[in-house]
Amino acid sequence: MAQEKKASGVEWRINVEDGSSKILVQEAGLAARAWLGLKGLVLKVGKFLQKAYDVGANDPRKAVHGLKVGMALTVVSLFYYMRPLYEGVGGNAMWAIMTVVVVFENTVGATISKSLNRVFGTCLAALLAFSVHWVACKAGEKFEPWIVGASVFLLASATTFSRFIPSVKQLFDYGAMIFILTFSLVAFSGYRVDELFELAHQRLATIIIGTSLCILVSMLIWPIWAGQELFALINGNMDKLANSLEGYVAEYFNPDDSNKNLLAYKCILNSKASEESMANFARWEPAHGCFSFKHPWKQYPKIGAAMRSCAYCIEALGSCIDSENQAPEFIKKHLSTACLRVSSTSSSVIRELAEIIKSMKRSSNVDFFIEEMNIAVEELQEALKSLSKLPNPPESKNTETAASVAIETVPLVEVMPAVTFASLMIEISARIKGIVKAVKELAKVAEFKVAVENKCKENQPNNGLVVQGLRKDEEAMKVLQRV
Amino acid sequence: MAQEKKASGVEWRINVEDGSSKILVQEAGLAARAWLGLKGLVLKVGKFLQKAYDVGANDPRKAVHGLKVGMALTVVSLFYYMRPLYEGVGGNAMWAIMTVVVVFENTVGATISKSLNRVFGTCLAALLAFSVHWVACKAGEKFEPWIVGASVFLLASATTFSRFIPSVKQLFDYGAMIFILTFSLVAFSGYRVDELFELAHQRLATIIIGTSLCILVSMLIWPIWAGQELFALINGNMDKLANSLEGYVAEYFNPDDSNKNLLAYKCILNSKASEESMANFARWEPAHGCFSFKHPWKQYPKIGAAMRSCAYCIEALGSCIDSENQAPEFIKKHLSTACLRVSSTSSSVIRELAEIIKSMKRSSNVDFFIEEMNIAVEELQEALKSLSKLPNPPESKNTETAASVAIETVPLVEVMPAVTFASLMIEISARIKGIVKAVKELAKVAEFKVAVENKCKENQPNNGLVVQGLRKDEEAMKVLQRV
Repeated sequence: MAQEKKASGVEWRINVEDGSSKILVQEAGLAARAWLGLKGLVLKVGKFLQKAYDVGANDPRKAVHGLKVGMALTVVSLFYYMRPLYEGVGGNAMWAIMTVVVVFENTVGATISKSLNRVFGTCLAALLAFSVHWVACKAGEKFEPWIVGASVFLLASATTFSRFIPSVKQLFDYGAMIFILTFSLVAFSGYRVDELFELAHQRLATIIIGTSLCILVSMLIWPIWAGQELFALINGNMDKLANSLEGYVAEYFNPDDSNKNLLAYKCILNSKASEESMANFARWEPAHGCFSFKHPWKQYPKIGAAMRSCAYCIEALGSCIDSENQAPEFIKKHLSTACLRVSSTSSSVIRELAEIIKSMKRSSNVDFFIEEMNIAVEELQEALKSLSKLPNPPESKNTETAASVAIETVPLVEVMPAVTFASLMIEISARIKGIVKAVKELAKVAEFKVAVENKCKENQPNNGLVVQGLRKDEEAMKVLQRV
Repeated sequence: MAQEKKASGVEWRINVEDGSSKILVQEAGLAARAWLGLKGLVLKVGKFLQKAYDVGANDPRKAVHGLKVGMALTVVSLFYYMRPLYEGVGGNAMWAIMTVVVVFENTVGATISKSLNRVFGTCLAALLAFSVHWVACKAGEKFEPWIVGASVFLLASATTFSRFIPSVKQLFDYGAMIFILTFSLVAFSGYRVDELFELAHQRLATIIIGTSLCILVSMLIWPIWAGQELFALINGNMDKLANSLEGYVAEYFNPDDSNKNLLAYKCILNSKASEESMANFARWEPAHGCFSFKHPWKQYPKIGAAMRSCAYCIEALGSCIDSENQAPEFIKKHLSTACLRVSSTSSSVIRELAEIIKSMKRSSNVDFFIEEMNIAVEELQEALKSLSKLPNPPESKNTETAASVAIETVPLVEVMPAVTFASLMIEISARIKGIVKAVKELAKVAEFKVAVENKCKENQPNNGLVVQGLRKDEEAMKVLQRV
């Protein structure tokens, strides 16, 4: 028995050892995997925190917005902690909190737009729901659910569908949702009409308290104006366009000069949606900074569209640089002066336009710069014309007679990449005139003044983008004046 | 007295007449203005209704979505009208209605994404708020408001800020908002913890009922799958790209053939945002149609980006057509055959790629078409090379000796526009290879099979866009086979 036990024990131990060694390996595997998993998790969390830090460091106003929401919520919590306030809204303080969480947006315009949508959507829906409720009550208990159900079904369907109509979506998307919500809640609630009035009155009061608080906090504490953002976006994009254009041309003729701003124009390609939504929100904002209440915000997306059409051409320009077929050096050299002149004059036009927008003053310089650009384009065209008379250097460096020159001209295939590049440059300068037109229209509609001193610059809120743009622009102007 | 009265009456009457005549004019003006205003209003309403009808006629699924929301709301109203259901959720039926209104989106993916965000946001926030509430209760009445207030301030600020981080914004934007909302509501509410548990349990039940109803209705009744939409968008855009490319080249060489599809590519330029959001929603969707749960939706925006890079070049191509400088007819004629061949072979490649995506089968034809495109590009390059040897027709139509040909070749300036056009064509064909690469990657990741019969086409849900695309494509293929 003891022997058996021992034997079985031995056997078992062997099994165990075999098993345990396996289990040990498994455990080690598990532990290792758990360790790896933990390490991966820590790395991921670290990466996430790094990203969050970058977001905050790039635009500290985003962190400030977070604090503003926290503050508004804490203020609204007073309705819970101060008895008179709590009883004043009949215990409906919940709706004030809800309003603050849902309505508080990043920009003042978006907050106002959502607030007004919420208030008017609620009022309209409550009024309609009262009427339906009243009719349903009169119709008797038997018909009541059918009348209410049918009205909710019809109104909810129609309103949901209306949210697909562009003009409704643009202005009243949130209001339509609130309308459906309030209408359903009021219509289905089993309250009597007089009870409902009391309830509606209190809820409306809390909603108005919540929205007012949001609007006040977003406007008074480090405000982010949608209009100002749009203004800075358009100005920033103009600088990027000018830098990319100059950068690409410089890159093409002097590939050694590395330029980091080369791909800056890419963000112009995708800024349509943000331009339009910001223009939309800016319409709700009161006068701020240099902008009156009726500032023609709708003009800015038009300028953006004109810039985008330029950026598409720059995109095509980029492919000339990356292309395998490159024109021979002597052809590039022949065109470089004219091309660089077109690019520098084009950039000057763009920078002058940015200056007009920034200072909100008409400038007579812009026509001068356009004239210069036109002259540069003509020079480029001349240079292209003379290209066919250019001698082919490897074969005949010192040709003298006209006939031999004509015979030994550069083959077309070699010229092609440079010709494409130059054509695109000419096209870009033509499209810049589209930007000029859009900016002049803005200047006309917004009644920009012709003035000497730049009073507005000083009044302008301290916006990083704009100021950065301004400085760059001033430097460019100085360089230009020296030239 | 009577006279006086009369006289004064007369005088007064005159005054009145004078006044009244003035008032009459004003009244007429008012009436006319009111009439004009009413007319304008009726016209505006008519225009709005026409727009609404157009939206519905273009995509009847939008109207169906409205009806689905109405239906879901009516179903959820049963919680108000059926006593056992109403009492089952402890009178919290309001939250079910709210959930339906807020969570029901156009596509299944968006509805599921919002539902999960709502449920998990609520759970997480409720758990955290319970803990804070418990700690605050233990700390005593004096510290309670401070602990709760500080925790709400910190969490709301941090969560609001986190919504700016791209990865959070993409997946959990709505969840973060619900988290702040629930946390604030629970933390501030004056309930005891055991009451809170009961309340939370009921509210969670209503939210789950609401979200389940939304998911069921959106999935079972004429579902709109974000994945299917993305699939149709990419396919439709491919057809548009092919049509625009062919259209532009045909327009350039035969301006008389009017082509309506010319500007179809424009919508590719601005489809980035919708591609990305749909790819994002499609990830939440269960297997449907030909698509498995793990279908690599993230590949589609990559294909979209490759197409967009092509569309930028087509944009530049368009400017060649509108340009004032046009190459002389005989040069256009010289290049037309080669250019038209490049455009038709390029379109064939794009259409074959669309076919691969549509049928979800790898195709060996695509390499054949690419080879054809490459040959066409080489032919175009040859045609460009021979351009410099082309005689200038007005001056010498029957030149025979090589020397005279060389001397009287076409001046470069005249060739320039055509050369630019041809270079852009070559660039477009190069960029099409980017689309090929993206599609091949999709075929690899999604494990498309090589097969003869197109089984999948029949299984596919009846989607207007796709079917239309398929038909066009089949026609194009037939034309191609005839050629």
